[in-house]
Amino acid sequence: MLPPSPLDAFRRGIGQVLRTGLSPAFEGAASSATANRSLAAAVRQKCRAGALTGPTAGLAPGHAQANLVCVPKAHAFDFARFCLLNPRPCPLLAIAATPTDLSPTIARDADLARDLPRYRVWRDGVVVEDVNDASHVWTGDELTGFLLGCSFSWEQALADAGYPPRHVEAGTNVAMYVTNVENAASGPFGGFLVVSMRPYAPEAVPAVAALTEAYPAAHGGPVHWGDPAALGIGDLSAPDFGDAVRVAPGEVPVFWACGVTPQSALAEAALPLCVTHAPGHMFVCDLVDEALRVV
Amino acid sequence: MLPPSPLDAFRRGIGQVLRTGLSPAFEGAASSATANRSLAAAVRQKCRAGALTGPTAGLAPGHAQANLVCVPKAHAFDFARFCLLNPRPCPLLAIAATPTDLSPTIARDADLARDLPRYRVWRDGVVVEDVNDASHVWTGDELTGFLLGCSFSWEQALADAGYPPRHVEAGTNVAMYVTNVENAASGPFGGFLVVSMRPYAPEAVPAVAALTEAYPAAHGGPVHWGDPAALGIGDLSAPDFGDAVRVAPGEVPVFWACGVTPQSALAEAALPLCVTHAPGHMFVCDLVDEALRVV
Repeated sequence: MLPPSPLDAFRRGIGQVLRTGLSPAFEGAASSATANRSLAAAVRQKCRAGALTGPTAGLAPGHAQANLVCVPKAHAFDFARFCLLNPRPCPLLAIAATPTDLSPTIARDADLARDLPRYRVWRDGVVVEDVNDASHVWTGDELTGFLLGCSFSWEQALADAGYPPRHVEAGTNVAMYVTNVENAASGPFGGFLVVSMRPYAPEAVPAVAALTEAYPAAHGGPVHWGDPAALGIGDLSAPDFGDAVRVAPGEVPVFWACGVTPQSALAEAALPLCVTHAPGHMFVCDLVDEALRVV
Repeated sequence: MLPPSPLDAFRRGIGQVLRTGLSPAFEGAASSATANRSLAAAVRQKCRAGALTGPTAGLAPGHAQANLVCVPKAHAFDFARFCLLNPRPCPLLAIAATPTDLSPTIARDADLARDLPRYRVWRDGVVVEDVNDASHVWTGDELTGFLLGCSFSWEQALADAGYPPRHVEAGTNVAMYVTNVENAASGPFGGFLVVSMRPYAPEAVPAVAALTEAYPAAHGGPVHWGDPAALGIGDLSAPDFGDAVRVAPGEVPVFWACGVTPQSALAEAALPLCVTHAPGHMFVCDLVDEALRVV
């Protein structure tokens, strides 16, 4: 009933090819997109005005949300290459040389240093500030910003297809685990893959896998299902990030590459200054989820 | 009979998204590939031994050939971003931090500073040396190497499908033109799109376009067909690079983004040191053309 886990193929492919989150098919989708941008723009405006400081899940439905990672300009090449070598956890959507350097396909009139509800400021690999505005440390090109796709882009699609993720039903954060799978390294960036987990009945796994595979810009399909020990995870009830979720008898845990992976790489790299979004407090794009779906 | 030119859509999309030459579908192709690597390895070995110094067209048939561009490490980020922003002329296959830093998917045991038949050494934007070995200027990480896909990957497929490019039949170099289409700029890299041209009967254009679109890692489909003036090309009989080719009465010129584009950007950037392949003298990959085809 349960197909073989894709883990071996995933491990073999690590670092073998360079790619972003976007496929050749995306160009057409982007140029034909005539999305209503006002919902997304309103969320960003509220953040900028200080009127929104909480998580973004469920806001501006249909619009893609993105992880933000900013590294010193001197390390921008190594981090760009880290993302290209590890496209499953780090699906690149955009690179911003300054806070306002974004193509209109991603978001118009945006300021990445002010338009997220909450930021983490990192110094020497440690989070030293948790703030609602990052413009005190990022105004010009001292940092380079990277936007990475997020699984929010397909969680609604899973629910719509009859496979609602349990943590969404429970209203909790998704369970995340540090694995024993080494990322492809680039300069000071390395570390281990972080995965998110959603439990499903074995017979649901093929459909759930196929649906999420269609979103390579949002981590794509699962990297593993079945025995957590294959990823070096000892205890599913004790996630490294987020909240534990019940795995019912007969269900299997299904694991996806997770956007927290680069934050684990940042901790290891211990650079003088980095900025990221605070977990769950994402950048809301004009770009729509549908444009990220590969058909 | 002739469908509308894709030029407007191409112009609108420039710089809107980041992508490499490789699609999400590639991972499977790569991991399942069990190509015979000996032909490609033999070509590289002959180059390294100084026994092959001529063009590589037709050598190791079925294996992908790649453009090489090496820039100083300090400019690697800007050039990587230039390629990601301009994936049609610059479809990234690999980034090498040193001459031997290549994944086995691209080529095993290769040395990018010695395994091409002919190199150009650039200083201050001008070619100052034309050499068979670049290891006198590139041994470590002083330069970062970029491999970009090449239209050789689909010229044989066109011929096999009954659409042989005329310059292949004539045994000449393809005709190339500098256009008035500005590349998306990144740091010192900008300049204008260079295109290659192959004439076809109008009724052949849809099939020729569809066949080449399937190779996004090799410039993909045409960026324009029809009136050369739409690209700012005044006289088809006077190409900027390569050899003129006859356009027969009733035929239309069909234009593809060309791997010479980054060399035009290098001339403009005028960096202290760069290395590229000499035109037509490509890097022969273990990677097979078939793995680059998106189905």
